[in-house]
Amino acid sequence: MPAQWEAHRTSGSTIAAIATPMGQGGVGIVRLSGPQSLDIAEKLFVPGPRFKGFKAYKLHYGWIKNRNQQILDEVLLAYMPAPYSYTREDVVEINCHGGPAVLEGVLEALYHLGAEPAAPGEFTKRAFLNNRMDLTQAEAALEMINAPTQDGALLARDKLQGHLKERVDSLRDSLEKLKQELCLAVDFPEEDLECLPLADLAQRTNSAVREIDQLLKAFEQNRVFREGALVVLAGRVNAGKSSLMNALLGRERAIVTSIPGTTRDYLEEAINLDGLPVRLVDTAGRRPTRDKIEMMGLETGRQLISRSDLCILVLDAGQEPAPEDLDILEEISPGKLVLAVNKQDLVSGTPGWVQDLKDKGLDLVHTSATLGHGLENLTRAIRSRILGEKRPQATSSLAPNLRQKTALDKARQELLLLADEARQEMPYDVLGVRLDYACTFLDEITGRIVTDDILNSIFENFCIGK
Amino acid sequence: MPAQWEAHRTSGSTIAAIATPMGQGGVGIVRLSGPQSLDIAEKLFVPGPRFKGFKAYKLHYGWIKNRNQQILDEVLLAYMPAPYSYTREDVVEINCHGGPAVLEGVLEALYHLGAEPAAPGEFTKRAFLNNRMDLTQAEAALEMINAPTQDGALLARDKLQGHLKERVDSLRDSLEKLKQELCLAVDFPEEDLECLPLADLAQRTNSAVREIDQLLKAFEQNRVFREGALVVLAGRVNAGKSSLMNALLGRERAIVTSIPGTTRDYLEEAINLDGLPVRLVDTAGRRPTRDKIEMMGLETGRQLISRSDLCILVLDAGQEPAPEDLDILEEISPGKLVLAVNKQDLVSGTPGWVQDLKDKGLDLVHTSATLGHGLENLTRAIRSRILGEKRPQATSSLAPNLRQKTALDKARQELLLLADEARQEMPYDVLGVRLDYACTFLDEITGRIVTDDILNSIFENFCIGK
Repeated sequence: MPAQWEAHRTSGSTIAAIATPMGQGGVGIVRLSGPQSLDIAEKLFVPGPRFKGFKAYKLHYGWIKNRNQQILDEVLLAYMPAPYSYTREDVVEINCHGGPAVLEGVLEALYHLGAEPAAPGEFTKRAFLNNRMDLTQAEAALEMINAPTQDGALLARDKLQGHLKERVDSLRDSLEKLKQELCLAVDFPEEDLECLPLADLAQRTNSAVREIDQLLKAFEQNRVFREGALVVLAGRVNAGKSSLMNALLGRERAIVTSIPGTTRDYLEEAINLDGLPVRLVDTAGRRPTRDKIEMMGLETGRQLISRSDLCILVLDAGQEPAPEDLDILEEISPGKLVLAVNKQDLVSGTPGWVQDLKDKGLDLVHTSATLGHGLENLTRAIRSRILGEKRPQATSSLAPNLRQKTALDKARQELLLLADEARQEMPYDVLGVRLDYACTFLDEITGRIVTDDILNSIFENFCIGK
Repeated sequence: MPAQWEAHRTSGSTIAAIATPMGQGGVGIVRLSGPQSLDIAEKLFVPGPRFKGFKAYKLHYGWIKNRNQQILDEVLLAYMPAPYSYTREDVVEINCHGGPAVLEGVLEALYHLGAEPAAPGEFTKRAFLNNRMDLTQAEAALEMINAPTQDGALLARDKLQGHLKERVDSLRDSLEKLKQELCLAVDFPEEDLECLPLADLAQRTNSAVREIDQLLKAFEQNRVFREGALVVLAGRVNAGKSSLMNALLGRERAIVTSIPGTTRDYLEEAINLDGLPVRLVDTAGRRPTRDKIEMMGLETGRQLISRSDLCILVLDAGQEPAPEDLDILEEISPGKLVLAVNKQDLVSGTPGWVQDLKDKGLDLVHTSATLGHGLENLTRAIRSRILGEKRPQATSSLAPNLRQKTALDKARQELLLLADEARQEMPYDVLGVRLDYACTFLDEITGRIVTDDILNSIFENFCIGK
């Protein structure tokens, strides 16, 4: 652990937060971590009749008081002493009824007795600072919570178990070893040590680059399983976008995880298309408008399409594509586009313009949202456009996130420069600096080297209470 | 316990559900109850290195598998054997990461191994059927979860602790005793037992009615603390309803519990006005319209106002009240109305029409939502209109809910009829039937007598997992 973090560990503050999602449910948990956890909890806990003192890792039945010392709720309380706890500090968890007023009442009482409000992700941050986990494992905790489907959760689990950490550490160790061999030659030039042959250096550098390439490929392959693919429904008003969205939602039998994302401008639903997690977005319908608010909605729609993994352009089989539709056909590359020719039940035969679009090689599916026709084909088209030849499941236990990928890119860049400089027979100490940089970038991934800024940017994305 | 429920207790089914609120958070709990709980959990649990077998009420660290026997998440697992558990059955709780995909994955695995999906409130229903609690305590669990503020939670706590049950049971026992004394006279008329003097009967009946009246008064007094008062902002478009709503929300420093209730027709926010929980609703602005959807919105607004505890009619100080505003002044009784004369900063002096409204004795407050003026006065006006002379806190530990209140009304009605019939010197066995009815209604409150319909109507309001 870097010395600058020792201060955190021994700072002695005790933090508290509600650890369960906000809202109403059967159970809610208030969590304390730090040296005062048990002292504070003890002042509020009124044990039940069978209580015989606090035992570690045991659920104690009783009641909890509010800051005015009034009994507030019936609870189960668990005390998990350091170091065998999530944070490696003393932890107390209070299981209350899952009502916001109750949980906030308990939290308020804990604050009153000296606990400090936990910052987002602070429990996990402490777990990292106290060496319970490395940074990839800390990030995996967040990825586990945000996983859109079980495949995403399994990817997070692999990182939680430390598999990415192991890969990165082993890569780093091999570079470190390489550097030591270089340094030997630099530090003791008079001793006429056998120099590391440049061919050896090149070969070992290339092998490290290949290793990184595997991780980078896994980033790309597993991205949609980690985050969900963004699929945007576009097309003019009344072509049937909303009906099609509802039909796709209705078709699905798997459990749907709804992500809040409804705004005035667009509607987002999370769906599971035969194993592929999709964030399906219905944009404001396109139509020529001078209404300012509506124009802002259209602009949002355009931005969503440009960020999306796939755009489904919904056309009305009974009408030729409107100028707005043609705009989309122009704007979006065919590889990111599926055409849904909807209201197929209201026309007979294939209109000429549909045939023209087909002839252009565009991916086109006939649907009837109201009758539920063509949905299987549409699903298949969406999946194969996004996944390509990929299997429907996440395939590897390696799923770097964007931060990790960016650090890998930088490490890779250093190694490529190293290979280049080795070819130019640059001095060994110059080459050694490249290896240093590469190791530093890898260390950023696991958190062996980490700045306040990196830590803050990671943990600010966590929920409070994790 | 009524015999018909024995079947439930011994039916042997094991139920499972996610017990924490839906959404993303640090921790989520999956809960099992029933004889197979431990067997099922054992098949999925991969214990950590320090595990030495399941111990009751202990948190066991380890990993949980999904239905495909893949490790899915890092968990803490607790086993709570019957009868010392929430349901009085064997209970297992699995604390996972609070992500929907993880929790659903664990739940799916439990179902796969034979657990059945728990119906809403089924854990609490089992707790009731297994005599862990009476019906008022079961309902208190839901009231605790739904409590809009801490005062509401404290009222629920009193019921959870059995105080309402005790009051009702003691009332019932006194009526039962009275009935026995009556029956004695009916059953052994020849033995010339001393009859219960009618004056005694009347006195004891009246005392029971007074007891019920206290409970009914507490229902009314505590209703807003239990449910929150419904306050509707009305008035025509552009009078500043939304700004005033935001200003009231912004003024408040206490923690706000947001209740989902936003629809296209109106916006609802829960706020805490110096201890008074309020559900503040901004209706669609009133203006003459022929737009069908807009008219539906207006109709919703009207219905909300008629159901509300208070209507705040927002007027623009710079404009005379519009016909739509005058409609509201006509429709709503002054006792349920506060006028907010808004945009006070844009006019000088008091317009004549404002003076006229004041002269009519209407409760009128000058505000400027944009400058934040008059909000204290408005808050005070809202509170005193709703609470009257009441103290700002809930005053009593007696807070029957609507169901309990309805049964109390019926019991009271029977007692009044009894008093009447006693005055008419009706036969003792007729009077005894009245007492029987009264006792039955009281028994419905505690659940000593309960029908499937009542049980279903109570528990269907619970969340799944409670």
